[in-house]
Amino acid sequence: MQFYQHGFYPGDPKIHDPADRLMAPPLKHPLPTKVDVMIVGCGPAGLNLAAQLSKFDTISTCIVEQKDDRLLVGQADGIACRTMEMFEAYDFADHIKQEAYWVNETAFWKPDATQPKHIARSSKIQDVEDDLSEMPHVIINQARVHDAFLAVMRHGAAKIEPHYSRKLLNLEVDHEAEDYPVTLTFERLDSQHLGVIETVQANYVVGCDGARSTVRTSIGRELLGDSINQGWGVMDVLATTDFPDIRLKSAIHSTDEGNMLIIPREGGYMVRLYIELDKLKSGERLSKNTITTDYLIAAANRIMQPYTINVKEIAWWSVYEIGQRLTTAFDDAEAGRLPHVFLAGDACHTHSPKAGQGLNTSVNDTWNLGWKLAHVLTGKASPTLLSTYSGERQAVAQQLIDFDRAFSKMFSAKPMSAEHPDGVDPAEFQKYFQQFGRFTAGTAIHYPPSALVSSGHHQHLATGQTVGMRFHSAFVTRLADAKPVQLGHSIKADGRWHLLAFAGNTDFMSDDCPVRALCDFLQNDTNSPIKRFTKKNQDTDTVISLQAVFQASHRDADMRSVHPLLQPNKGKYGLKDYEKVYSALSSHGDFYEKRGIDTHKGGLIIVRPDQYVADILPLDDYQALSHFFEQVLLPS
Amino acid sequence: MQFYQHGFYPGDPKIHDPADRLMAPPLKHPLPTKVDVMIVGCGPAGLNLAAQLSKFDTISTCIVEQKDDRLLVGQADGIACRTMEMFEAYDFADHIKQEAYWVNETAFWKPDATQPKHIARSSKIQDVEDDLSEMPHVIINQARVHDAFLAVMRHGAAKIEPHYSRKLLNLEVDHEAEDYPVTLTFERLDSQHLGVIETVQANYVVGCDGARSTVRTSIGRELLGDSINQGWGVMDVLATTDFPDIRLKSAIHSTDEGNMLIIPREGGYMVRLYIELDKLKSGERLSKNTITTDYLIAAANRIMQPYTINVKEIAWWSVYEIGQRLTTAFDDAEAGRLPHVFLAGDACHTHSPKAGQGLNTSVNDTWNLGWKLAHVLTGKASPTLLSTYSGERQAVAQQLIDFDRAFSKMFSAKPMSAEHPDGVDPAEFQKYFQQFGRFTAGTAIHYPPSALVSSGHHQHLATGQTVGMRFHSAFVTRLADAKPVQLGHSIKADGRWHLLAFAGNTDFMSDDCPVRALCDFLQNDTNSPIKRFTKKNQDTDTVISLQAVFQASHRDADMRSVHPLLQPNKGKYGLKDYEKVYSALSSHGDFYEKRGIDTHKGGLIIVRPDQYVADILPLDDYQALSHFFEQVLLPS
Repeated sequence: MQFYQHGFYPGDPKIHDPADRLMAPPLKHPLPTKVDVMIVGCGPAGLNLAAQLSKFDTISTCIVEQKDDRLLVGQADGIACRTMEMFEAYDFADHIKQEAYWVNETAFWKPDATQPKHIARSSKIQDVEDDLSEMPHVIINQARVHDAFLAVMRHGAAKIEPHYSRKLLNLEVDHEAEDYPVTLTFERLDSQHLGVIETVQANYVVGCDGARSTVRTSIGRELLGDSINQGWGVMDVLATTDFPDIRLKSAIHSTDEGNMLIIPREGGYMVRLYIELDKLKSGERLSKNTITTDYLIAAANRIMQPYTINVKEIAWWSVYEIGQRLTTAFDDAEAGRLPHVFLAGDACHTHSPKAGQGLNTSVNDTWNLGWKLAHVLTGKASPTLLSTYSGERQAVAQQLIDFDRAFSKMFSAKPMSAEHPDGVDPAEFQKYFQQFGRFTAGTAIHYPPSALVSSGHHQHLATGQTVGMRFHSAFVTRLADAKPVQLGHSIKADGRWHLLAFAGNTDFMSDDCPVRALCDFLQNDTNSPIKRFTKKNQDTDTVISLQAVFQASHRDADMRSVHPLLQPNKGKYGLKDYEKVYSALSSHGDFYEKRGIDTHKGGLIIVRPDQYVADILPLDDYQALSHFFEQVLLPS
Repeated sequence: MQFYQHGFYPGDPKIHDPADRLMAPPLKHPLPTKVDVMIVGCGPAGLNLAAQLSKFDTISTCIVEQKDDRLLVGQADGIACRTMEMFEAYDFADHIKQEAYWVNETAFWKPDATQPKHIARSSKIQDVEDDLSEMPHVIINQARVHDAFLAVMRHGAAKIEPHYSRKLLNLEVDHEAEDYPVTLTFERLDSQHLGVIETVQANYVVGCDGARSTVRTSIGRELLGDSINQGWGVMDVLATTDFPDIRLKSAIHSTDEGNMLIIPREGGYMVRLYIELDKLKSGERLSKNTITTDYLIAAANRIMQPYTINVKEIAWWSVYEIGQRLTTAFDDAEAGRLPHVFLAGDACHTHSPKAGQGLNTSVNDTWNLGWKLAHVLTGKASPTLLSTYSGERQAVAQQLIDFDRAFSKMFSAKPMSAEHPDGVDPAEFQKYFQQFGRFTAGTAIHYPPSALVSSGHHQHLATGQTVGMRFHSAFVTRLADAKPVQLGHSIKADGRWHLLAFAGNTDFMSDDCPVRALCDFLQNDTNSPIKRFTKKNQDTDTVISLQAVFQASHRDADMRSVHPLLQPNKGKYGLKDYEKVYSALSSHGDFYEKRGIDTHKGGLIIVRPDQYVADILPLDDYQALSHFFEQVLLPS
């Protein structure tokens, strides 16, 4: 899709008239007085959490925002592959894929050896390694991602709309209270209700209120870490230029004029420029009062000599300092006390924008927290489950910050030359970029062993699906309708656990097929986690959904022999669900081969509601299977 | 996506609460008194035309419908590959792909040789041959396609909304009038305006008002053809069954109980059944008064023995007779008189539903007409262009009807057996089905030579792109951003002509590169069609858009050497359009090899605004190029 050719206008570019892209102004209802979950902040972390909780109509969720309406411009724009996989779980990845710019290659530019005042391309490299994810790395205005989350929230079972123009004044936790222990006080900021005070009691509060989080301050957590004192300017522009790689992500190092990052944007015309500013003195703060757009444009032109850029329109711009900071914990838990207040996103970790980790890490935070809150609030798990959030996410944030710090430092350093022998070798920078490709793609996140992640004793049964990492999708063929589908896309943002059974090399659903035996155990045995943790009146796959992947081709498998648990009768009519049985073979290859599944023994992969591999087991290790779920779920 | 598990509800299944899927009731504005185009009927033909015309804000279009609101259930559901390609030109193919059922395989069932009262599967075959289209054959409620067209209309430059509850009473053409020669009289049917008469004058009228078209009657055309007197019942059901192919398109022939077609539907649970009824006596009419759903369900159960189907909910049902009929022309033209009234869809040709040609042929009608009307109404072409509509589409409809007649007859015949030696051999039926796969996919449409289609003298330069047939897309890599894209998807529903230049084997954009010479001609020569037919103040690609595909890989092509005509400056800012230059190589193969492009000489393909190949020329045949456009366009 091409758009913004005649200027930037916010909203859905499929709507021709920009005036029609505006949405109805936010409703100005008072806040509820009691809620299960209060989310403070409508950034990506907050909206992702609200989107997840909107799937559950028995959970009352409220989300507030200090600004007076939804975001329309600016801020983050890089969407990592892993984040796109998450969007697929909400069914809006296709929409983002269509509208976004795709990062296919990255170009590296360094000082020209013969004319050091000029830049020259050192190389172009593939941005994402083959088969790292079925999703592309894309770039799109954060506001459009917000719009997609807002639609999921509005259309979900719980129908959630944000309450805007609310400033959090105070948050207190009554540790003695049995119910609704958190009291929040808000001030309304809209002219019609200016100064009106509202009080809300909540069971759980999630602070997604940014780097200056009031929620964080209220629970006494601090963002710790040093700032490198490097200033940067960022601009979304419509411009003409003779720079040949203007439609490629380009990292430019100049000899003496500083560095720049070019990020092409959605619509084919807009581009984002990250421009290095002078080093800041200690304590100095950047502001739009001291830096102008003319200054940034002039700097860009100096950096990219002999090329020039002629800016025609600035859709958005900002200045910022790099600062990598982190809180020691992401909740208010203390020894012997379970958490009731959580932090997510910039409220507990800040990054430089250039590695593209801010938005992506933020949504991964609440992606981790959402299903856990839903489990506790629907009675499926004990509140102790919530302690795993800080444990899992704080460690990841620390790794990301370490990576970001090294990456930013390299990026801001002068290129190595005779004059700057201690500079960074652009070839080294490029190597680092490639090496950490999985990191920036979001696919390297690896949760350590816990009640939710096994030690990986049976990892050898599925060498391409690492315990503690996200389930790595690939194509299979659905038996019932012969459709090639991504197996991972069957795992939706609905809070369910998944058992993916990979059959051994026995005949399809024969008497000695271990998947048939597993089905019998899960259907009939008193220790079956499906029996133990699913309520009598619920569909059998409401809490734990079983699927199976066979090595037979879809033409050779006889659907009549499929075990009833793999074709469960669901809903008020008892309609059969035909979308749980697959052939590993498709025109895209063999899933077993691609993901290292043991072709002889097969294996059982337990996948968490957030798509992370919790454990891999032999198909007949019913005891370990039962034990795993006993540690996590409460009997129904 | 899975939905309808708890019952069928119309509207967008992504919205959890069916009540929220309702849309605002239609506005009840009076009709305009004068319009450029009056479209009668909001079926697929009418909506597709309105969607196309909505792209042009200088054309006034009005669309009316006798019913009181948009369609919510029933009617057609098969979307051929070619129709999906058209949807892509409106940017909503992805949305339909996500929501629809994909027809990947078709199963054929015949009487079991050993137990003739039972059916047995004779075979499963791939539904669409490899690389016939980049789009799948899908099944989705026609109402959802309407919704997509309605969104395009609403969001287009001309912002078109249907006027409902209008019955056409009368249509008259004043052949002496210079302007607005057609006068239409409507009666309003809604309770608030019941009986109010409205009169509209139009330059052009398109009758998309179905098999009983008043527009057709008004211009004295008749649907001619015989009816086979075979009755059928059709039902969309939620049901349980032990039939193993319930999620495959299945054609079932029973020995004595008749025939049935099973079409699985979107959402994973719903299925459509086409059930053969008894032969009708001459003059006998089917109606819902004589056929009940119980009757249809009992018939289905008899046909599919030993399997049974237990219907839980009927989302929609109908009965109909097969009738293949056609008008002699699709407009009101007579010798020496240009057309002002056109017919499209069921108004001029009717089919049996089973070959899935009704909706697909109807949208192809107005897809052919839309750009021609827009050309004439924006002054780009003379009204004589409009005569080609009936010429091109009437012949196609005749072919389709011949095919449908043979297909339906085969389908309704008894299977060959000892008892019925003159019956149809199921193997023959299957062979016929395969043979005509391109026909049912919509990709076989072949317009004969005319001012708009050459005789194909240079067909050998691109053997995989047949002159007169739709441009056959395949992957290429866009040079500027290294993105693998479908070349055909650059051709949008915007009324532009396309020149696709395939370079020979000279170096990329070198001095002896024939594409460079072509660019020079098109940019500078007084005979250049781009210069002649584009207004001074318009972007150079407003009427004719040039793109080029090179054999160099995207890493080897130097963007700095690209001719300015292939990177034109556009819009008020003169921003460069970087999306017109490609490498033939991608991870999906070589476009030249896939589509038979002459690797030595290359070639120039002229593609019409409706994606049909108008001509193939040597890159340096400027005279033929100029001549082609002289025949079609008016100098600006």
